[in-house]
Amino acid sequence: MLENTLPQFAASLASKAPVPGGGGASALAGALAAALSSMVCNLTAGKRKYAQYEADIERIANSAAELRLELLCLIDEDAAAFEPLSRAYSIPKDDPARAEIMESALETASRPPMEIAVRCAKVIDLLSELAEKGSAIAVSDVGVAAQLAKSALLGAGLNVRINARSMTDRARAQALLARLDALESAGVPLADAVYSRVMERIG
Amino acid sequence: MLENTLPQFAASLASKAPVPGGGGASALAGALAAALSSMVCNLTAGKRKYAQYEADIERIANSAAELRLELLCLIDEDAAAFEPLSRAYSIPKDDPARAEIMESALETASRPPMEIAVRCAKVIDLLSELAEKGSAIAVSDVGVAAQLAKSALLGAGLNVRINARSMTDRARAQALLARLDALESAGVPLADAVYSRVMERIG
Repeated sequence: MLENTLPQFAASLASKAPVPGGGGASALAGALAAALSSMVCNLTAGKRKYAQYEADIERIANSAAELRLELLCLIDEDAAAFEPLSRAYSIPKDDPARAEIMESALETASRPPMEIAVRCAKVIDLLSELAEKGSAIAVSDVGVAAQLAKSALLGAGLNVRINARSMTDRARAQALLARLDALESAGVPLADAVYSRVMERIG
Repeated sequence: MLENTLPQFAASLASKAPVPGGGGASALAGALAAALSSMVCNLTAGKRKYAQYEADIERIANSAAELRLELLCLIDEDAAAFEPLSRAYSIPKDDPARAEIMESALETASRPPMEIAVRCAKVIDLLSELAEKGSAIAVSDVGVAAQLAKSALLGAGLNVRINARSMTDRARAQALLARLDALESAGVPLADAVYSRVMERIG
């Protein structure tokens, strides 16, 4: 998927093929948020006005670059992890092996969206620092990135939820949902606070 | 920009080059939301269970395909429209021609983000129909798309706001901001309602 041009990826997403879908789109949106975080760091580093934040900006830049690459890889990982589930759905409902294969496929398919959610929450953490320490010339980009990372977190979350819903192992499903709730209930208000701070700085 | 692979586009976004930036990232997120809307239509069309919505789904599919292509083109249009502004910022502050060039560049740069916002609001309208009429197997994708379209609308909005702020023609700036406020105050609650409806359907 990573060799696709932007219009090719968008066309694959539009098709009825099982992948890419909402998980891959969320991973890409998260990668765009991480990329914008890097851009803000690149426009802040070395500027005298922000010299007091130089070490912070370097640390944020390193994390943002890593998160961008991980989120891009998660586009492919999500597609690979969804394939067994897509095949499991086509097993006849009266096949006695179906339930076990389905349960295993649901577990596999829920992993990449959870990893996407974890990384989007980390991008939001970086942005909450950049809302204060990033160059004023890139303040709107911090706000755009916060919105994109929040949508990617909630989008990945929907993909965890839809898989967790069908799991017969309810303890596993509840553990996944609890982990997701913790990420969302920290990340969403933080992203909203970043956006509000940006609106304040834009004035 | 449209010939870039996903990692190439993300790397350009991460660089300190003036484009692409938050406007292009918002346009791409909007295009992903439109693409997911198409996918939902493709998974719904021709299914007996949704036969009553067949004509609606066809209409939504046509609009979504058009919006996807327009939003992809807006990535390049945003970059082209930002370049004169990027050059205007480098004109010495005591150059008497600066103010007029800057005002014209701000006006040019604000156009594509407004067009992005208009189209994202239209994608959200389509999604509010798909939340009811789209196949249950793609319900999470409707929710992902609603989140992405909302973030793209607000992200494009920040790019309109940051340009409007610097305009000396305050009447023009106020007209832009009023138009944006109307789009956001209709689109944001509608996207939130779509996401809530999806959460309800996931259960």
